Amino acid sequence: MRWIRFTANNKTAYGSVAGDTVTEIAGEPWGDATPTGATHKLAAVKIEIPVIPRTFYAAGINYAAHIREMAHKRGVEPVFPEKADIGYRANNALIADGEDVVIPADAPPKMNYEGELVVIIGKKAKHLTEDNAFDCVFGYTIGNDVSERTWQRGDRTFWRGKNTDTFKPMGPFIETEVDLDAMETVIRVNGKEDLRFKTNDMIFGIAHYIAAMTKYLTLYPGDVIWMGTDGTSPDLVHGDVVEVELTGLGVLRNRFVREGM
Amino acid sequence: MRWIRFTANNKTAYGSVAGDTVTEIAGEPWGDATPTGATHKLAAVKIEIPVIPRTFYAAGINYAAHIREMAHKRGVEPVFPEKADIGYRANNALIADGEDVVIPADAPPKMNYEGELVVIIGKKAKHLTEDNAFDCVFGYTIGNDVSERTWQRGDRTFWRGKNTDTFKPMGPFIETEVDLDAMETVIRVNGKEDLRFKTNDMIFGIAHYIAAMTKYLTLYPGDVIWMGTDGTSPDLVHGDVVEVELTGLGVLRNRFVREGM
Repeated sequence: MRWIRFTANNKTAYGSVAGDTVTEIAGEPWGDATPTGATHKLAAVKIEIPVIPRTFYAAGINYAAHIREMAHKRGVEPVFPEKADIGYRANNALIADGEDVVIPADAPPKMNYEGELVVIIGKKAKHLTEDNAFDCVFGYTIGNDVSERTWQRGDRTFWRGKNTDTFKPMGPFIETEVDLDAMETVIRVNGKEDLRFKTNDMIFGIAHYIAAMTKYLTLYPGDVIWMGTDGTSPDLVHGDVVEVELTGLGVLRNRFVREGM
Repeated sequence: MRWIRFTANNKTAYGSVAGDTVTEIAGEPWGDATPTGATHKLAAVKIEIPVIPRTFYAAGINYAAHIREMAHKRGVEPVFPEKADIGYRANNALIADGEDVVIPADAPPKMNYEGELVVIIGKKAKHLTEDNAFDCVFGYTIGNDVSERTWQRGDRTFWRGKNTDTFKPMGPFIETEVDLDAMETVIRVNGKEDLRFKTNDMIFGIAHYIAAMTKYLTLYPGDVIWMGTDGTSPDLVHGDVVEVELTGLGVLRNRFVREGM
């Protein structure tokens, strides 16, 4: 089933999507999801980010080729994670499908994409195991973990390199049914395929991460876990359009614009 | 003015506090703050965390003695921050005044307190300067940035060392008027004073942080910025009660209990 968060007639709501029709609900899809009686044409609504997460989790490094290629770029030995230490991103940076990634005027030129699978939590959960970890998963969407590499390495935290306003496109919709093992991530820059990888070819998979995390923390409905990315991105410039497509999850499309240009 | 977020009769709301009376409002204190007509006895309500932040910012290292003493404990040279790089904490870890910090059964023994001033944002803000930074500040509360030092240094991120469930006590209330320069932070363990420092003796002050942050990110009402701590904590054990008192902000009191004891 497909869900979208949208604005129409100055009201932001969730709705289920079938064909080109959005059936509006009250509340959240992981709640009572009572239809309001209103329907909308999909093409006529403004797509919003699928959720404002209570906590915004990100696996960070979780694919082998990404680690090897990033280390090669920096002229250092690759370091693979020994365990599933979850990281974080910041809500201020979230933007929806179709909105612009704004590169600050003084940002260094190493602007990169990172196309990621996003897990959306639907149930409060603690102490899950790898066997029942998916019980708390509501669905999936796409994230682009946009990064400026000079800031990422030079600042004490990821605040500018990863969390500058507009650096976290997420969407366009939430899909509850996917075939993880059949899923591919395809990234296009200005319409041309730039990268393709098996989405589920992670160092630590979704169930492993959720089991590890919920040993110490409670997941809440609306939390998101960004699962990391493979490969590497070229340095993006003003005017570039990045599309991240995941099998069954549609396309997350955002233009990069440099402030003041 | 003093504000509290509380639960009474199974309803969570904000209210203004005068003496021992809570005057309930609809919405948030930084919004319309319309009185509902209900009042409560302060002693009869359950105190909740003052806000669930949209983004949970934390300065981390921001006091000279803390940096020197932590470096001494680890046998390394102190490294002072060169600029105001903001960090993050996670909402899952928040608990209210009076609730227990639960030390996981397998947590190493280096459980420490960090008593901090918390800035609560009341207005959407970007591109502020040091001169007008306080325009976006609604008020202040107290935070205890509880940390397990072995996890803090051994994990790739702060996920267990700082963000295990219950590791972020915050409260008890929000005060809109304070005298920052006169403020002292006093921390007591089991009723005995353990640490005292000038709250505003920060390496990078509030106005400097807000100006630096809002060059790249938008602050939203309800965001919080934890300003860091001075000094060092003893290793806390099952049964210890930690009180963090800041002049004009009351006392944040939480007991530490080890899971399974």
